[in-house]
Amino acid sequence: MTIFVPHKQNLTLFEKHRGTIETAINAVHQRIYYAAFPEMPSPAVYGENAEADQKQKFEAQLGNQFSRLKQNSDRWQVSSEQSPYTLKPLGISYPVFNDAAEYVKCSQAAWDEWKQTDAETRAGILVESLDRLKSSFYELAFATMHTTGQSYMMSFQASGPHAGDRALEAIALGYQELKRFPAKFTWEKPAGKVTLKLEKYITSVPKGVSLAIGCATFPTWNSVPGIYASLITGNPVISKPHPKAVYPIALVIAHIQEVLAENGFSPNLALLAVDTDEKLLTKELAENPNVKIIDFTGSSSFGHYIENLPGKCTFTEKAGVNSVIIDSVANLQAMAQNVAFSACLYSGQMCTAPQNIFVPKDGITVGSEKISFEDVKKAIVEAFEGIINHPKMGPAVLAALQSEMTHKRVMEANLLGGKVLLETKPLPNSEFPEARTAGPVIIELPASDHKIYARELFGPIVFIVATENTEESVKLAASIAQEHGSISCGAYTTDENKMKMIAERMAYAGTPVSFNLTGGIYVNQHAGFSDFHVTGGNPAGNACFTDPEFVLKRFTRSSVRINLN
Amino acid sequence: MTIFVPHKQNLTLFEKHRGTIETAINAVHQRIYYAAFPEMPSPAVYGENAEADQKQKFEAQLGNQFSRLKQNSDRWQVSSEQSPYTLKPLGISYPVFNDAAEYVKCSQAAWDEWKQTDAETRAGILVESLDRLKSSFYELAFATMHTTGQSYMMSFQASGPHAGDRALEAIALGYQELKRFPAKFTWEKPAGKVTLKLEKYITSVPKGVSLAIGCATFPTWNSVPGIYASLITGNPVISKPHPKAVYPIALVIAHIQEVLAENGFSPNLALLAVDTDEKLLTKELAENPNVKIIDFTGSSSFGHYIENLPGKCTFTEKAGVNSVIIDSVANLQAMAQNVAFSACLYSGQMCTAPQNIFVPKDGITVGSEKISFEDVKKAIVEAFEGIINHPKMGPAVLAALQSEMTHKRVMEANLLGGKVLLETKPLPNSEFPEARTAGPVIIELPASDHKIYARELFGPIVFIVATENTEESVKLAASIAQEHGSISCGAYTTDENKMKMIAERMAYAGTPVSFNLTGGIYVNQHAGFSDFHVTGGNPAGNACFTDPEFVLKRFTRSSVRINLN
Repeated sequence: MTIFVPHKQNLTLFEKHRGTIETAINAVHQRIYYAAFPEMPSPAVYGENAEADQKQKFEAQLGNQFSRLKQNSDRWQVSSEQSPYTLKPLGISYPVFNDAAEYVKCSQAAWDEWKQTDAETRAGILVESLDRLKSSFYELAFATMHTTGQSYMMSFQASGPHAGDRALEAIALGYQELKRFPAKFTWEKPAGKVTLKLEKYITSVPKGVSLAIGCATFPTWNSVPGIYASLITGNPVISKPHPKAVYPIALVIAHIQEVLAENGFSPNLALLAVDTDEKLLTKELAENPNVKIIDFTGSSSFGHYIENLPGKCTFTEKAGVNSVIIDSVANLQAMAQNVAFSACLYSGQMCTAPQNIFVPKDGITVGSEKISFEDVKKAIVEAFEGIINHPKMGPAVLAALQSEMTHKRVMEANLLGGKVLLETKPLPNSEFPEARTAGPVIIELPASDHKIYARELFGPIVFIVATENTEESVKLAASIAQEHGSISCGAYTTDENKMKMIAERMAYAGTPVSFNLTGGIYVNQHAGFSDFHVTGGNPAGNACFTDPEFVLKRFTRSSVRINLN
Repeated sequence: MTIFVPHKQNLTLFEKHRGTIETAINAVHQRIYYAAFPEMPSPAVYGENAEADQKQKFEAQLGNQFSRLKQNSDRWQVSSEQSPYTLKPLGISYPVFNDAAEYVKCSQAAWDEWKQTDAETRAGILVESLDRLKSSFYELAFATMHTTGQSYMMSFQASGPHAGDRALEAIALGYQELKRFPAKFTWEKPAGKVTLKLEKYITSVPKGVSLAIGCATFPTWNSVPGIYASLITGNPVISKPHPKAVYPIALVIAHIQEVLAENGFSPNLALLAVDTDEKLLTKELAENPNVKIIDFTGSSSFGHYIENLPGKCTFTEKAGVNSVIIDSVANLQAMAQNVAFSACLYSGQMCTAPQNIFVPKDGITVGSEKISFEDVKKAIVEAFEGIINHPKMGPAVLAALQSEMTHKRVMEANLLGGKVLLETKPLPNSEFPEARTAGPVIIELPASDHKIYARELFGPIVFIVATENTEESVKLAASIAQEHGSISCGAYTTDENKMKMIAERMAYAGTPVSFNLTGGIYVNQHAGFSDFHVTGGNPAGNACFTDPEFVLKRFTRSSVRINLN
């Protein structure tokens, strides 16, 4: 017999995507390079007219109702979205419910059949939704660009292929954990003259309504892992985007709803809950007793509030203060260019962007030569200038500032203290003359000015900190990570023992370290299927994309034993 | 090169126990029957003179210093332990530190080398400690009997072999998770003309000092999973037993300390922190900011306090109200005897013991016959009487009451309300005339008397509740589980559809169900390697012996990337 009969089982989509799921599970466990979604906006891959068609779609969407959602709401709300490139409101309206309780009620009502279907049915539907999302990657890029201020290329890659890979990774790990133990087995225990015999069943029990609170800088990349992890493990999801970055995740949710509905499940299993700057819905949703799981990306203070809500299972990514430790290098310019690019990329608005560059005050060795602190500084500042002043690369790398607050922070950075090595300056963008931009600021500080640099100054603000020696650099980087959180750490050393020391110290401070990056690979980039993103081991967040905990905490296991004697 | 060089690596013990570890990992994942420690106190297995020798050791220990611990404390504290069989104090003194801070400091000081050794070294040492514990199984049985009031047989099985299996299960799952991802691998990404190449390393980062708060009824079985799960994942442990049940876990800790010390690690990695009824240490330990992990077994109110301590990773097992749902049976007496045995075993002081027996008021079918509610009741009461009045089996099954409070609760049970079907009565124990015992009480209640039966009445107190029908029985059992917690559920039905319905409803209430148990297998027993104990899916606890979360939450993963281009 069968206990726990799957409801609305549908193996067609699972069979269609079985190869992808199996490859993804293997990649996650081998952690070798794998990309289910090619990262370049190539016509050969994504369609000859895809870019032009979707650009048109994007333009037509501006100022209009986003009517692609299938959730049953008849009230329309114009969002607070505004393009950092044009400073104009997007003017898109989304269907909304009356209050948080209505979203939660609607989510719960949709839950039953999803809860009781099997891992295959869920995985098939979810991978299909990603497959469909591919057909919106260009529109997603424009939507991301004009909400976050990212460059077009980053918008395409981060919101499309890279987010898709991260979502697939969550599905793969969730699927593997759901299938980890046998669903049915026989247990026989010898007991003297008789053998006790039980038929046993194990099933997974999803925890309940899941809330995904998005951020304004990476509206899909940071949200889809939690959304897909909750869905694969059987939980309905309410996606509550940042009021300033709704459109990108609305596209994701629309595709999920579409595939759910086509396969006989309620589209309300993935709801979009749009609020505005004037009337935020987040706390009301988060505090609803029927919301059991919360994924959050955003500020440390709000993250702390989320983590301390009683009775919730939370996954947070908050702020990080990231360090670069420079001990010794093979090539000064190569290091300086790599660090400068990492800090300039999207004007330092990546959670992995470096902020503090620790350099020994007596200088470093470059190959076999000793180079002074002044020369290291100079090389770094020049590398920044090289990017900023490059007429084509500059605007593409630095892109735009997502918020007015970040702009203000940069403009006032020269008042922070220390010696300003590079002033902010206007960054003209020929395509978007109104773009909200500001060139990066570099400030030199002594190690003793801890209170200035040991906190996150989100945006293109970089400190070069003179330390006694590399020992002190590491000590500072580790203590900042442990006290304030870090998500990345770059380190340059040609000394194997120092490499080991830095690796250990930073690992125990919950921070991944990238050594000696030069050329086309940067500390900011955490690759799906291979790199864990945020460890959960320091205050930067309590969760990790995607370790097994990230999916396991979303369900429990329950079992049945039937006497066969 | 090697990043994250293991400290004090020792593969000898790992090689010695590799077969056991691999078998255990396989058993956990197949969930088939496996017992690393045979459960019968057999001279052939455990030694010809083992029982007599260890009985002597036990008797010599009474009234004396427990000098087998290697932790550096020079103050001795007589414990509050008292035998429920003789009502005499055990008079054993244990080495103690001055305060909670000293335990935590000492634990932290021992941590470094353990944190930085590898999974093999830890697993070898930990399995060796269990292997040594085998040589104390009889002493452990006497120690358990005279602290908990369990029968000699249960004391042997629960504290020795069954606890050993649960500990090994935690080691196996921990080891497997630590080894889940490759420690070192190469990642190559094609990027146009070049191939980006990184060497990557992943390491595990233990969370910190782990506190294991024990209970008075199962001092080793309930504590060793957490203790071994924390140790295998690299955390130092402070074991804080219940003041009334120290001796059993002291034996476990002594063996762990012995093997640690023999292999060059600090014995303080597993500390015993004994307190007394007069001066409890638990809150001081739990609230210490350097205590990061807490395992707790005990009352719901204290468990709630533990779960809500900020910044701690907690694993709790609190109270449960367990139900038996009787719908239809093949053999009335076989069912009644099984249920009665489950409720009588250790006088209902197991967390899995049934309390509420739900029977439809219009009776049930037995085979093809209809039997009245009265006759079901009668069969159950008679089955209880059969056990209680059996001169040899009675005292062995019912054993003794651990606490005076439980005794008082039983004596006053007739004031709870309802119709008393079986009064408590004296249970003479010829071997221990002073034993704290009281025969079970059975009370009949209507379903409407929810407020009486929908809470845990720890001890031998059983309610037979008349319901409208099986639907209502399940509804009540499920709602009690969801509101107050349940750890087990027995169900009897010959109807496959009802079986599916009960299985689903109780699974979604986070409660495992055992169907149609008769003969020598009982709802109380959760087998190591096969049965999940406590789901974490209802208020009975937030953790599960042993699901992957139980080990995963004790560490995070950190990584390193080295540029090879």
